[in-house]
Order: sequence, then structure tokens, then C-alpha cells
Amino acid sequence: VAELEQTAPALAAQVLAGNRLALARVLSWVENDTPAGHAALAELFAHTGRAHLVGVTGAPGTGKSSLVNQLARYFRQPPAGQAPRRVAIVAVDPTSPFSGGAILGDRVRMRDLAGDPGVFIRSMAARGALGGLASTTAEVVQVFDAAGYELIFIETVGAGQAEVEIASLAHTTLVIEAPGLGDDIQAIKAGILEIADLLVINKADQPGVENTERALRGMLELAPEHLAWMPTIWRTVATEGTGVAELAVEIQRHASYLQESGEWARRERLRLQAELDQLLRETLVARWRRKAPDGHYPEVLERLAARALSPYQAVAELLQAEDQNDLR
Amino acid sequence: VAELEQTAPALAAQVLAGNRLALARVLSWVENDTPAGHAALAELFAHTGRAHLVGVTGAPGTGKSSLVNQLARYFRQPPAGQAPRRVAIVAVDPTSPFSGGAILGDRVRMRDLAGDPGVFIRSMAARGALGGLASTTAEVVQVFDAAGYELIFIETVGAGQAEVEIASLAHTTLVIEAPGLGDDIQAIKAGILEIADLLVINKADQPGVENTERALRGMLELAPEHLAWMPTIWRTVATEGTGVAELAVEIQRHASYLQESGEWARRERLRLQAELDQLLRETLVARWRRKAPDGHYPEVLERLAARALSPYQAVAELLQAEDQNDLR
Repeated sequence: VAELEQTAPALAAQVLAGNRLALARVLSWVENDTPAGHAALAELFAHTGRAHLVGVTGAPGTGKSSLVNQLARYFRQPPAGQAPRRVAIVAVDPTSPFSGGAILGDRVRMRDLAGDPGVFIRSMAARGALGGLASTTAEVVQVFDAAGYELIFIETVGAGQAEVEIASLAHTTLVIEAPGLGDDIQAIKAGILEIADLLVINKADQPGVENTERALRGMLELAPEHLAWMPTIWRTVATEGTGVAELAVEIQRHASYLQESGEWARRERLRLQAELDQLLRETLVARWRRKAPDGHYPEVLERLAARALSPYQAVAELLQAEDQNDLR
Repeated sequence: VAELEQTAPALAAQVLAGNRLALARVLSWVENDTPAGHAALAELFAHTGRAHLVGVTGAPGTGKSSLVNQLARYFRQPPAGQAPRRVAIVAVDPTSPFSGGAILGDRVRMRDLAGDPGVFIRSMAARGALGGLASTTAEVVQVFDAAGYELIFIETVGAGQAEVEIASLAHTTLVIEAPGLGDDIQAIKAGILEIADLLVINKADQPGVENTERALRGMLELAPEHLAWMPTIWRTVATEGTGVAELAVEIQRHASYLQESGEWARRERLRLQAELDQLLRETLVARWRRKAPDGHYPEVLERLAARALSPYQAVAELLQAEDQNDLR
């Protein structure tokens, strides 16, 4: 491990120079939360802050992956007069804390975008705590940002709180719907709409698309008035590429809005603060564990299990012991 | 607030005596994380550990709420020779961090189970951090447990990491599926199966039920051999009550298995430990904030935003300052 740590600055330099193998290695370090990963991030962080981060979220079955693939292809081969942009896709699967659900999606992607050196795809499954996944995703995005990827899609499967947290990493958030996805969908939208910058009805060639659009418009009418950016609704059929160009133009329009309104800097600041707080939380707990007197935690847990202490009383006990330790 | 805190022990005593109004009040305190709530919990905690906690999770559109209602009705009016049991339902909606998505579900429930004093229903939407929701749910469950509710259903909308964390509160976890819910469902199952004790295919009168069951059986074949409890698959049509009695019997069989195998005590211990760790984490951060020198955090955040520090370096700075503060 010590050897890897020494090579971290060298590898970081190779990442900055565009070496894909170095990039893949640093990504693995970062995902596995290794000291070498931290060392590489410290080198790379100064080069971040240039990429446009686009969050893509929505319920299972909405065709998110196909749509992201199509968008990636658009930005790789834009209309005449525009420069192609380097695209990274970070596919996060918070629903698979144990098995490799993300792998399957990866294969589908490979088929579509393989061989293009301007595209890099990384799938991540949840390992352990959710907070951990959000901060690892933030770090993976930073590595891509430093490596010169100009557009980074952060795609999450599902539509829960996890996705909200991960989507909050992005400058621009797309919420994907599809016609006819069950009754609870209203409840989902109630929360998810508040994070959406763009609403996309994918599979728009399927029956029920009118109902879905009407429901979304109804939701939007409940939005607070005087929103600086009112979310817009788009129809796509990703499998055929329909509506993808229009959606891509809107994504760019949102980036311009963010830049001109000062909202870009504000979101950037909020994002970094959330990351700082998360890391601080993890570090405080690790520190506390190192300082705690041996055997005290198991003893307190025992009394908690015996209902002799309530959880709040147990925490008070644990922290009192630490205070006394400080005084010695 | 001071007045409420003084009355917390009195109110806790009323909760233990079965007063529903006192129960509702303490639940509100606990949900709002008030000092009075903590005081009441300290009184009530010694009376917990008796209820059977049943987690119910699954994707939107699977009909979870109807199924939980039917199960509640079964346990209120069991077959001859069995005593009715007091039932609480805690409906958690992690997908609605902002708006009251849970309210709608509440009204539907009211119609079904209203007027039965042996049933208490509480809906909770996510407020703020996910960790916060999981620990608030744990506390709400403790209040019901102390109040003598023998069977507590913890129902979560969605099928993400959030639901996994909340389901881990339960002794018995039901994962609900329905026929024909899109392609990504395989990916969901990959993770969710690992927490399932019982698998339920609801809406089993709809086309595709054979496919869903085949997929689930295929997943189960991937399970590690020699599992002490092999998850079983059940078909229900909650709207008509079909299969509900059989499912209820299986829930009781799982409780017996847990008790006899010692797994009940093991899960109880893990659950309390998770709760203790979460509370410890929150308290450590609150404490650090109180001790931190004024203005240092904003200054470090500023340098982070300017990319003069990486997130890890920023945390190191923040904690160094605290250490120096300790030495004064």
C-alpha cells in the first residue's frame, strides 16, 4: 500500500495527461477508498470544477440507460460547427448493495459506445452505507472532471431518497418518466419534481403518454411561482433516437442559464459543502473509535440490549467516557 | 418546551396505559426530534422488545399498502381459537423528501381500518437526511412497541438502498413484487432478495405472474446453500383478500423460526447497534459544531471552493483546529 501511495502523484499526472489506464486505476483506488486514492484526489482536485455534471434519475423501466447512451452519442457527434465533447458516464445502482446488478447494464452500454476514446463509462454498485456511495460518486466525478471529461452523466437507477442525494451532485438534473408505470408514480413525482430541471417522458411512442404528460403538467402547476428556471417537459424515444437532439440542446440551454444567473457557482458551493460535511462526519466517527477506551462500547451495547439504557442514554455514556479520556 | 419536557414522564405513563391521544402526541414529539421526545423515549425504552416487527418493501405499483391493510385485518380478526393482536402500521415514504406524498395513502387506509381501536397507523415522509429518517422510524417503532402493539408493520415505498436500511429494522422482511413491472426489475431483485424472508407476488391475477415467479425462483437458486431459512414465494391478490391468510400464517412461522433459532435475539442486537451507531454519528457532529472556533468552517469552505484545498485536506484542517482548541 505504501508503494501505491508513493506512485499516486505520478499516476495523477498521467490522468491529467489523458492516460486511460491510469484513469481506470485511480478510479478503482477511489472506489475502494484507499489511501492511494486519497493521495491521487489531493493532486487532482485543483483541476476540477470545469465539467458540466448532468444527473439522470427515474424509476426502473423508464429506459434511462438508452437515453444517456443516445445523449452521449449526440455530444460526441454534434451538429456541424460544434466541437465534440468528451463524455463520462457514471452509472450508480443504489438498489444493489450486494450483487453486481450494474454489470448487466455495462454490457449493453459497451455494445453502443465501445471503441470511442472520447467516452468513458463506469458502473458503481452500492457498497455499505448510502452516505458512502454518495461521497464515492462525488470523488469518481472529480476524477473524471480533472481528467478533462467535459460532460459527466451521473445516472441512478430508482427514484428514492438515494437518487435525490446523488442527483444533488449535478448541475442539471433530468428526471425520466415513461407512460403507464403504476399508481404510486404520483407519490414519487411529488418528491422528485423538486429536483428536476428537465422532465423527460421516454418511450413516448407507448400508450398513455398523454396521461403522463398531463400529470406532469399538473405537478408543475403546483410549483412555486416566480421560479427562475421553470422545468420543461420533453418527449423522447431513446431506442429510435427521437427527441434526443432537442433534449441535448435544452441541456446546453440549462448550462447557459446556470452560468449567467450565478446559479452554477451557488450549486457548486452547496455540492462541495455537502461533500465536506459527509467526509467530516465519517472522520469524526473514525476518530472517536480510535480514542474510545477498550471494551466500553461493547459494555454499553450490552446494557442497551438489556434495555437498561435507552439509545440516547447509551450515547451520553459513550461520549462521557471520551470526555474523561480527554482530561487525563 | 421546558413544560413539555416536564410532562414527558407523565405522558409516557399514559402511553403505557394505552391512551391513544398520549401516543399520538409522543409520536409527534419523536418525529420532530424534540427534547420532550427524547425524554419520553428514555421512559418507554425499558418496555420495548416485545413486538414482532415486519418490514414490507417493494417497487411502486405492487400494491403494498392494500396488502398490509389486509394482513392487519387478518391479525385483528384471526381464525377461531387465536387471539386478535394489536397492530401498528408505520408507512415510510423515502421518495417524498419535500411534499406530503404519504398523506394520500393515509386516506385510503383510513377507509379500510378506521374505527378499530386495536389498529394505529402512522405515515412518515422523509425530512432531511436519510439517516435521520431511519433513526426516526426506529424510534417511532419503539414507541408502538412500548405501547403494547404486538405486530408492527414497517412499510416503505420504493426498492432502493433507503428501503434496505429501513427494512433492516424488522425481524421479518416481506419483499412485494407484481407481474410485469419493467425490465430493470431483475437488477432490483439482485439486491433486494438478500434481505427478503418472504417473497410475495401481489396482483397475482394479472398476466405475467408465471414469468415473475420463474424469475424469483431463478434468483433463489443463486442463494447460498445451507441457508437456515430459505425465502418462500407467495401469491396474493390483496384487493380480493386472496392468499392473505396463507401469507399471515407464514409470517407467524417465520417468527417462530427466529425465536427457536436464536436469530431473533441476534437481529435485535444488530438493530440496536445500528441505531446506537447512527445516533452516535449525529451527536459527534453536533458536538464538533459546538466546539469549532467561529468562522473557521466558512473559511475552510471558501478555500475548498477555490480548489486551494481538497476535501480530505479541508477535513484535516477542520479537525486540527479542534485539536488545538482542546489544548487551550
